[in-house]
Amino acid sequence: MDNTIFPRDEVGRTVRERALLLGRHSDAPDHYTRTVFTPAHVAASRQIATWMREAGMEVRVDAIGNVRGTWPARHTANAKNVVLGSHFDSVRNGGKYDGVLGILVPIACVAELHRRGERLSHAIEVVAFSDEEGARFQTSFLSSRALIGRFESTVLGRRDAEGVSLEDAMRSVGLDPARIDDARIDPANVAAYLEVHIEQGPVLLQEGLALGVVTTIAGGTRHLVRVRGEAGHAGTVPMPMRHDALAAAAEMVLEVERRCSAVGLLVGTVGLLKVRDGTGNVIPGEVEFTVDIRSAKDRIREAAENDVFAAFDAIAKKRGVAVEKTKTHGVRAVPCAAWLQERLAASVERVGVQVRRLPSGAGHDAMILAEVCDVGMLFVRCGAGGVSHNPAETVTAGDCGLAVEALLDFLRRFEAA
Amino acid sequence: MDNTIFPRDEVGRTVRERALLLGRHSDAPDHYTRTVFTPAHVAASRQIATWMREAGMEVRVDAIGNVRGTWPARHTANAKNVVLGSHFDSVRNGGKYDGVLGILVPIACVAELHRRGERLSHAIEVVAFSDEEGARFQTSFLSSRALIGRFESTVLGRRDAEGVSLEDAMRSVGLDPARIDDARIDPANVAAYLEVHIEQGPVLLQEGLALGVVTTIAGGTRHLVRVRGEAGHAGTVPMPMRHDALAAAAEMVLEVERRCSAVGLLVGTVGLLKVRDGTGNVIPGEVEFTVDIRSAKDRIREAAENDVFAAFDAIAKKRGVAVEKTKTHGVRAVPCAAWLQERLAASVERVGVQVRRLPSGAGHDAMILAEVCDVGMLFVRCGAGGVSHNPAETVTAGDCGLAVEALLDFLRRFEAA
Repeated sequence: MDNTIFPRDEVGRTVRERALLLGRHSDAPDHYTRTVFTPAHVAASRQIATWMREAGMEVRVDAIGNVRGTWPARHTANAKNVVLGSHFDSVRNGGKYDGVLGILVPIACVAELHRRGERLSHAIEVVAFSDEEGARFQTSFLSSRALIGRFESTVLGRRDAEGVSLEDAMRSVGLDPARIDDARIDPANVAAYLEVHIEQGPVLLQEGLALGVVTTIAGGTRHLVRVRGEAGHAGTVPMPMRHDALAAAAEMVLEVERRCSAVGLLVGTVGLLKVRDGTGNVIPGEVEFTVDIRSAKDRIREAAENDVFAAFDAIAKKRGVAVEKTKTHGVRAVPCAAWLQERLAASVERVGVQVRRLPSGAGHDAMILAEVCDVGMLFVRCGAGGVSHNPAETVTAGDCGLAVEALLDFLRRFEAA
Repeated sequence: MDNTIFPRDEVGRTVRERALLLGRHSDAPDHYTRTVFTPAHVAASRQIATWMREAGMEVRVDAIGNVRGTWPARHTANAKNVVLGSHFDSVRNGGKYDGVLGILVPIACVAELHRRGERLSHAIEVVAFSDEEGARFQTSFLSSRALIGRFESTVLGRRDAEGVSLEDAMRSVGLDPARIDDARIDPANVAAYLEVHIEQGPVLLQEGLALGVVTTIAGGTRHLVRVRGEAGHAGTVPMPMRHDALAAAAEMVLEVERRCSAVGLLVGTVGLLKVRDGTGNVIPGEVEFTVDIRSAKDRIREAAENDVFAAFDAIAKKRGVAVEKTKTHGVRAVPCAAWLQERLAASVERVGVQVRRLPSGAGHDAMILAEVCDVGMLFVRCGAGGVSHNPAETVTAGDCGLAVEALLDFLRRFEAA
């Protein structure tokens, strides 16, 4: 066998099977949810480390629980790293490729280099981020922030739904919250950060293309909104005398939808809504909900935010309820480096896929890495109508094989700008 | 001291103080919530039993956890019972007089008879119902249903938020679910059922009256509504492609409000709403909420229900989501017996309060008892703007004293029709 011929189909099948295998490590028995520092998360971390070692990498788990595998350069002196990564936590009842694909595709590239006994002019570091979605502690980009030294220690006190703090959850899996700084990467040693990710949208599917080159990662903010009305008996308070916090919140939810549907390149979502002490026979006195607004254009997003929150104030005033908001997350749109887009595009073309450039509506760890280095992203076509964060999320083995082949081509030709 | 002079002020203060004392037995450390078969509920039950015994009553806890005190008739042969009662469970973060007043006022009446050494021509049974609100297991009128032999054993399998079944909760406090029938009352021995209750509305407060005589108890239904849309990534699914279960539910919440505001004698409430697997960055795929609609006129209520659910179907169709509803509770409006209204009105007048007759917007255990005997209800003025099911709920000691005096007058003159 000519070991320079790339076994695309076999590699693609392996990547897809591994994503499904990893999906069995779930916090829930009947669906896929994997949140940071649970037993399922630890098991997934160990499985990833095993695959990294099998690919010939040296592996360590860093201070925030990221699994990090390295493949040394041909000549180690002065060789910078190409960092490749994505996350292995999930949203609740999520899809099995989201994040995981950006770990398995790079591992498959290194495995192929290992099979060929080939070292490159630069080192490769594959980072499996422990927490990006942040479903357990309502964090975001926890692990990539730690990687660039921007971990905010205030989040250590945050508690999950069972009251366990992030700090205690870290300790329970053998991590020392005092040593988070050890996870830090030295930007001077990073040539570029690359992230492979399922598109999580319908564009590549509709255009019949396996791969896409990301131009910009949309910016977004998330706010926690609290509406305070007046609780009361559901049978005795006449309708005109009510200050129903849920009815007010319902009007606000529809306002987010209306305003964010008004222009393109903009999306707005209320993903979480809770009635405090809610029960069937009590007029809701307090409601909390999230507002997530995103756009590839910061100006479009900011205009929508201003309008939405002004409308919230008007609704609250009209209904005699109080509304307050807290910003829990905010990132500006991040461009992918032009030179990395060019090189990724060239590799995509060389594996026979017509080059499609598109923005990413979702946020990714690449946004955080962009603060310290140039970043590039490669999208893999999303099946099932483009749904993601959903059990129906899927990719084909063929597309996985093309992703590995294109990334391998990129890495073998890579030379830092 | 002339022991036939009623110490109204002192008795009123005692009733009010006891309600506050009882409110300390709460499931939550920082506010008042008392749900069935918790340690706080058992403690409240013991306290009520103690006060009953101090008032000279014979006390037992029945098979569903009701605390029942009896004060025998002068001549026991053929003497029917006048049953007096209300509940000692609460809604979450509720008011301390709701239910409890209908236990403490009758106990105060018997205590006064005891002080005077007076027995009446009929026996008195005071029933402190263990569960009416049903906040823990989403039941309603659990205990009064058991009293009249209409307990539905299917509810035994219902689970609370922690997954504990009603059956197991009963066993944990020493009750045997197989013996619920022992709680049954013999309707042939019941002359009438009377319930004293805080108004839970603003009518008596606005008219400056301490007491009111209830004409009808509003009927009501509760439905659990489930909306199924399509979960998806909050950043990548374009607004026109979404099937957001929460946005659909928000439109339905506002429809309940709109339709039930359109005519008088009607109220509609969505008290509970939950986003399944809700998190900030996922488009909601499934939402559940309750719809509670009530009216003193069954025809008005039924017309509203039909319109509301037809509107839900139209909203679901327009948005490409599925909606289904399950009826979890339903009672028709119940009139209070005319002869009991007359006698209560006469007693109210004798203690110097102008007679005001009014419907009850809230449901009460009296609705259930009405299936087997004649019922009457006496309302006590609600302070703080008439709010109830709310920590601000309040009554004055003076009004409590008047309530005891009027009920005592009623009992001493009572003769079954």
